[in-house]
Amino acid sequence: MDFEEKTTRRKEIFKGHIFDVAVDDVELPNGLGQAKRELVFHKGAVAVLAVTPERKIVIVKQYRKAIEDLSYEIPAGKLEVGENGSEMEAAARELEEETGYRADLTFLYEFYTAIGFCNEKIKLYLADNLEKVPNPRPQDDDEVLELFELTYEECMDLVASGAIRDAKTLIALQYFALHFGGK
Amino acid sequence: MDFEEKTTRRKEIFKGHIFDVAVDDVELPNGLGQAKRELVFHKGAVAVLAVTPERKIVIVKQYRKAIEDLSYEIPAGKLEVGENGSEMEAAARELEEETGYRADLTFLYEFYTAIGFCNEKIKLYLADNLEKVPNPRPQDDDEVLELFELTYEECMDLVASGAIRDAKTLIALQYFALHFGGK
Repeated sequence: MDFEEKTTRRKEIFKGHIFDVAVDDVELPNGLGQAKRELVFHKGAVAVLAVTPERKIVIVKQYRKAIEDLSYEIPAGKLEVGENGSEMEAAARELEEETGYRADLTFLYEFYTAIGFCNEKIKLYLADNLEKVPNPRPQDDDEVLELFELTYEECMDLVASGAIRDAKTLIALQYFALHFGGK
Repeated sequence: MDFEEKTTRRKEIFKGHIFDVAVDDVELPNGLGQAKRELVFHKGAVAVLAVTPERKIVIVKQYRKAIEDLSYEIPAGKLEVGENGSEMEAAARELEEETGYRADLTFLYEFYTAIGFCNEKIKLYLADNLEKVPNPRPQDDDEVLELFELTYEECMDLVASGAIRDAKTLIALQYFALHFGGK
């Protein structure tokens, strides 16, 4: 059985700052004919499960325009141009900008967020030995954030209420439960 | 502190079969000025953690055009028009089409996959008491799938090798570990 879909034509729809969009005509394998694939191309992102010495989890509250609602999430940010070779530095930068912490980072997982149509890949790091930076890098000037340090149980209350409903944050919380014995 | 971003203008970029794209001009809260938000709108999807009586996990191998590579994932599919009120039926349909199984379904979680720019929401179900259907609904005619039934340890080998690198599948495997005692 063959799986590969060969592109016969690509139509570029949009070139943005955050993502590009294209529609590909593809030749299906095994003589199945043609199909169209609507695609979103994204530079990737990093996310950080930051655990304080008191075993609390750093959570950022922010407004998400895509869902027109508030969201509670672990700190995260897009990779910027030229950062592909140093995702860990990008994770350290996002952690400092969003939370004012420096920390020791350990790579946990990488995953595609919406593999059916989008190539966004998130690299997830664990941050421990957190230390407050005296003069942290400033937040991005179009971000309004509120910080919380929550126990695992408080986080799971936010999952139950629907305030946490973000894939990367769920992955981080389940990692915490599996490796720090959340419950 | 105020969080909401008010839309002052929406530019529609693309209307697709799988997603739409728009760029919003927004008024930031707290007098921070203006910003642009690039947005992808998606109808949502369902995914199924299907566990056999032998405690194996049903995994689908398929080609994913967005990453130009093969991917091993739990069964999943987009919601079709008019299915918003019956996501569990959509999950049962996807399970039958992709695997030939009927099962008892239990809702586990819902989560946004790429909340920074996209409103795709996945509802994840647990399927147990699996039964092979004598004449299952056919697969979509543009999908080429290969089925596996794998132990949790075999799935984690695929995570380690990079063959599983899909957020919804990671969430399902972590759920399995936490609730079925993966290890």
